[in-house]
Amino acid sequence: MTIPRLEKLVAQMRDTYSRGPGINDLQDALPDRESVAKVCTRVLAILFPGFFTAERISKTELDTHTMSQLMDLQSLLLDQVARALRYSARVAGKAKPANLVEHTRGMVLEQLDLLAHVRELVSTDVEAAFNNDPAALDRETIVLSYPSIEALAVQRFAHGLYRAGIPIIPRMMTEVAHSHTGIDIHPGATIDESFFIDHGTGVVIGETCTIGKRCVLYHGVTLGAWNPIGAKDENGDLKRGSSNKRHPDLEDKVTVYPGATILGGDTKIGHHSIIGGNVWLTHSVEPYTLVTIKDPELMIRKRKVQPSMRVSSRIKKA
Amino acid sequence: MTIPRLEKLVAQMRDTYSRGPGINDLQDALPDRESVAKVCTRVLAILFPGFFTAERISKTELDTHTMSQLMDLQSLLLDQVARALRYSARVAGKAKPANLVEHTRGMVLEQLDLLAHVRELVSTDVEAAFNNDPAALDRETIVLSYPSIEALAVQRFAHGLYRAGIPIIPRMMTEVAHSHTGIDIHPGATIDESFFIDHGTGVVIGETCTIGKRCVLYHGVTLGAWNPIGAKDENGDLKRGSSNKRHPDLEDKVTVYPGATILGGDTKIGHHSIIGGNVWLTHSVEPYTLVTIKDPELMIRKRKVQPSMRVSSRIKKA
Amino acid sequence: MTIPRLEKLVAQMRDTYSRGPGINDLQDALPDRESVAKVCTRVLAILFPGFFTAERISKTELDTHTMSQLMDLQSLLLDQVARALRYSARVAGKAKPANLVEHTRGMVLEQLDLLAHVRELVSTDVEAAFNNDPAALDRETIVLSYPSIEALAVQRFAHGLYRAGIPIIPRMMTEVAHSHTGIDIHPGATIDESFFIDHGTGVVIGETCTIGKRCVLYHGVTLGAWNPIGAKDENGDLKRGSSNKRHPDLEDKVTVYPGATILGGDTKIGHHSIIGGNVWLTHSVEPYTLVTIKDPELMIRKRKVQPSMRVSSRIKKA
Repeated sequence: MTIPRLEKLVAQMRDTYSRGPGINDLQDALPDRESVAKVCTRVLAILFPGFFTAERISKTELDTHTMSQLMDLQSLLLDQVARALRYSARVAGKAKPANLVEHTRGMVLEQLDLLAHVRELVSTDVEAAFNNDPAALDRETIVLSYPSIEALAVQRFAHGLYRAGIPIIPRMMTEVAHSHTGIDIHPGATIDESFFIDHGTGVVIGETCTIGKRCVLYHGVTLGAWNPIGAKDENGDLKRGSSNKRHPDLEDKVTVYPGATILGGDTKIGHHSIIGGNVWLTHSVEPYTLVTIKDPELMIRKRKVQPSMRVSSRIKKA
Repeated sequence: MTIPRLEKLVAQMRDTYSRGPGINDLQDALPDRESVAKVCTRVLAILFPGFFTAERISKTELDTHTMSQLMDLQSLLLDQVARALRYSARVAGKAKPANLVEHTRGMVLEQLDLLAHVRELVSTDVEAAFNNDPAALDRETIVLSYPSIEALAVQRFAHGLYRAGIPIIPRMMTEVAHSHTGIDIHPGATIDESFFIDHGTGVVIGETCTIGKRCVLYHGVTLGAWNPIGAKDENGDLKRGSSNKRHPDLEDKVTVYPGATILGGDTKIGHHSIIGGNVWLTHSVEPYTLVTIKDPELMIRKRKVQPSMRVSSRIKKA
Repeated sequence: MTIPRLEKLVAQMRDTYSRGPGINDLQDALPDRESVAKVCTRVLAILFPGFFTAERISKTELDTHTMSQLMDLQSLLLDQVARALRYSARVAGKAKPANLVEHTRGMVLEQLDLLAHVRELVSTDVEAAFNNDPAALDRETIVLSYPSIEALAVQRFAHGLYRAGIPIIPRMMTEVAHSHTGIDIHPGATIDESFFIDHGTGVVIGETCTIGKRCVLYHGVTLGAWNPIGAKDENGDLKRGSSNKRHPDLEDKVTVYPGATILGGDTKIGHHSIIGGNVWLTHSVEPYTLVTIKDPELMIRKRKVQPSMRVSSRIKKA
């Protein structure tokens, strides 16, 4: 009784697959989430050998280990990037790129070549965490337990792919990191050295942000767009991608405290500025500026002491 | 020396198991998290073949693939739902449901029959993401990398189970999605087509919410309850579940910007309304309303330029 | 062509490994994330047999099951804790601890002995969830689906390790839970019985917090530090660790609603107090106090009805 019913359902699903997003089949193969998650795992294993996985590495075999990880990463990227390029050409109405395999190999090798640079940059992020967090006792513990290191390591590598024009994969990579850390950094964001994000949950950094050296963000900070829904081209279509500058710039040594929101593509925060908790800022400020909000007035009252009191104001629960 | 000490500890643990929540043993078997996580994985694999897992699917074998996934999903659900029904009857002091196996099979098949409908709904969510996000270049990328698609696909399927009265499993499913995405949607929430949640971290949507067509939420939005602690029945017990309407309604085409909070079971947001960032709203508004908060006054000062300055106001760190 | 290029890259990576954080090699072995994630899984499996994993347990074999889990957990901890102790001694410039193996075994057994106590405490947390959440229909469902139970179970066990002076591992454990739940509780925080965190995403609880009995927090609450950047010792170095009291104390039966921020090591919230949503509080309050903020003024306007309207105020998007 069950099988015929399931067969009917198979036919219904087949019918829905012809509408909405297509399926990811062999002939029109797209990237997939599971493989891109493995890309992230390999990148972290190469940047910080032995920190993220339980494998045992001896110093005498370190090169062998690195080579093995690199070959795995290369193999994953060759497959996933070729899929992304082919799909992207199809969506744009272009022919399949000529020499796709050779073209992909060249792009992937260029990205692998950037790994040493990414490692140097993320090492400055580790140092920045150490210099900013009184709970941090040493650098290795930061790599082992701070979510911002995972988020930044993945974003910095994905940013290379983004700049090289590799479609889809960079965004998938930063979403893997977002899922693990609660930190949502678009791969398009340009982030200079020594960046620290404390706690991190709820942080959003948009595609066209630039962030200078030695900046610090706390949890719940949004570096976002102002009124993007209104940003349409002459045909009424949304302006898409990096050509539409819509997120703010932070110069060097800017600190943004929890829950603050900074919006707009013309908004520039001058160097050495401090943006206080919960500030909502949509215009530029000069270097060495301290922006705080006037504290909302608190109402402090004595509770009536009774077991089932009804609370009258400003209290919520979902 | 170690073993006797561990044996003593085993005895201590056995003792604690008799208090607090019971154990999940074979005779009184409850659902378990690992199996329900697999349910979510299967649902996503059926809704979007090849997007979430690395399996290779050819179009000629698509039906075979779908059937295989459906049979796995059915098998997982038959086991987990039967456990939930049996446990739930026991908690309610009722006898084990008669014909539990047949009863469960009927319920599970009804839910599987809804999969094509869920696919249609989630396809409208993909389209809504495409229409609202300037960073989105195509629809397939949205399925591959937007957390709201995973959260909504799982919630929409779980909502079917919730409506059918299947206990425990629906909430477990949406918590799997919450863990992956930071988006916490109760399976009881009734959500119409073309819903988009951007970024998503920190979004909370309560059990008795209703959301109309083409609504948009940003990260950090709460659609919550007002003063639920006070909502008790005549015996002083909490009123539990869906009969206690305590979360708001959004009509069609409502947009809610980041950090806004809308509370209360009598609160209805009229269609085509826009609720601005950080708004706190506990009453209804008419259609076509724009609600914003008067910007808190900013205090903008020049920082003294010295290396170890003490910051004096509105700055926090955890 | 590829291999020589990869070999060059291997050499570059080897070069970067000599700067920044070291590698985790066999001779100087550090803990690793994968093993510590397994520690968390084992702890949850022992505290709540059958809830988190799909294993089938029969009551007659419960002791065997518990013993097997305990031996696995012991073995993982012996390895990881020894690594942490050895590394920590090295960082502090001390010799490798004498009798490291015996010393570690003693510490680990002491921690295992605390498991029954942790189970009792977390059972009070389950009861607290049941008493506070109208959506909760029974206690077992809370263990199966509430993120706060996972976060608290892991933190309460990790807190034992923290108090015993075991380095690195406790913080790694709470970060595993943070990644799964969005709830970031430092292992140093001292939390009394019957604690409930609803939804949880974005909650941050700092290292030197103390929390009394029967407290309740909602999502997005920060119990944080005030101006820690200024807290330096006479040498200009950050004051680090638990000796630097910088986070608040909550006495018994305090409730803190979503988005509220309470800061500072001298801030004490008196028992039976209620802190309303979005409150920003940096000073102590007496017992039985209700603190709310004066609602920010709302601006409610009729939207012009036109398809491509530009929204003018207080609206953001990232």
